[in-house]
Amino acid sequence: MRILGIDPGTRHLGYGIIDSSGPETTFVSCGVINCREALAMTDRLVRLYEELGKVIREFRPDCAAVESPFFSENARSAMAIGKAQAVAILAAANAGLSVFEYPPAKIKARISGFGASAKDQVARMVALQLGMTEAPASADAADALACALCHIQEVQTAAVFERRSD
Amino acid sequence: MRILGIDPGTRHLGYGIIDSSGPETTFVSCGVINCREALAMTDRLVRLYEELGKVIREFRPDCAAVESPFFSENARSAMAIGKAQAVAILAAANAGLSVFEYPPAKIKARISGFGASAKDQVARMVALQLGMTEAPASADAADALACALCHIQEVQTAAVFERRSD
Repeated sequence: MRILGIDPGTRHLGYGIIDSSGPETTFVSCGVINCREALAMTDRLVRLYEELGKVIREFRPDCAAVESPFFSENARSAMAIGKAQAVAILAAANAGLSVFEYPPAKIKARISGFGASAKDQVARMVALQLGMTEAPASADAADALACALCHIQEVQTAAVFERRSD
Repeated sequence: MRILGIDPGTRHLGYGIIDSSGPETTFVSCGVINCREALAMTDRLVRLYEELGKVIREFRPDCAAVESPFFSENARSAMAIGKAQAVAILAAANAGLSVFEYPPAKIKARISGFGASAKDQVARMVALQLGMTEAPASADAADALACALCHIQEVQTAAVFERRSD
């Protein structure tokens, strides 16, 4: 199973792709889609949708795991996050992928054992779990990989429960 | 010129289509795309995108005018509004339409002369300006038509200024 993790933002959208086969989890790729601050919001959304579509066509993931905060302190930033989440969800769903959403606290707890890890700690844990020689340079890409890893752990936990209940 | 006005929401997305030719403005159609509350957010966004795509393919508007509040009192509702706005923008832009955004206060000021009009007043003003025998039954559809009318007035004002500056 190939998973596309997405950390949505209207300025920087992180993505990370990993393969999962039995107990083995392999790093495939990661990166960030950037939008200039001067770009109008409409043009940003269109650009993010298009670029994410290219990533999906290149790597052909089976499903997408999107980091989805359910609230924010600031209503203006909440609206922007909502837009970026919608772009990620539509780009993935319109390409035929199953879409799963995970709140940041759950991803951090899954990756590092507790929910309020520092950014660089998440990046180091991601690198460790994927056997990467160094942590991803971008925090957005690291967060996207963390979201993909979180999804694999969720699926594996569910599979364990299914076997136990047989 | 045919304008598609959109009042975005993740439960109810209003749309309204009008034709503008010189001083003449004609009502074409309006309606609401509804999503059941039980439907997951991801499925709502996909449904709204698909249904809005159908409206665009049926009526072939030249551009879209989207009602876009820039802030909200509540961060959770702001996130949902942001998602609905992104769906509207992407459905229109991906179909090749130019997209314009107008804040609610500007639309209400354009339609009724001041910015804080009651919902039913907007619906009555829309019906009056479009020569409809009765106001649209849905407030969301009326708001979408108001947004389309606002865009026409913006374009006409810009045209007047252009002529004056010749």
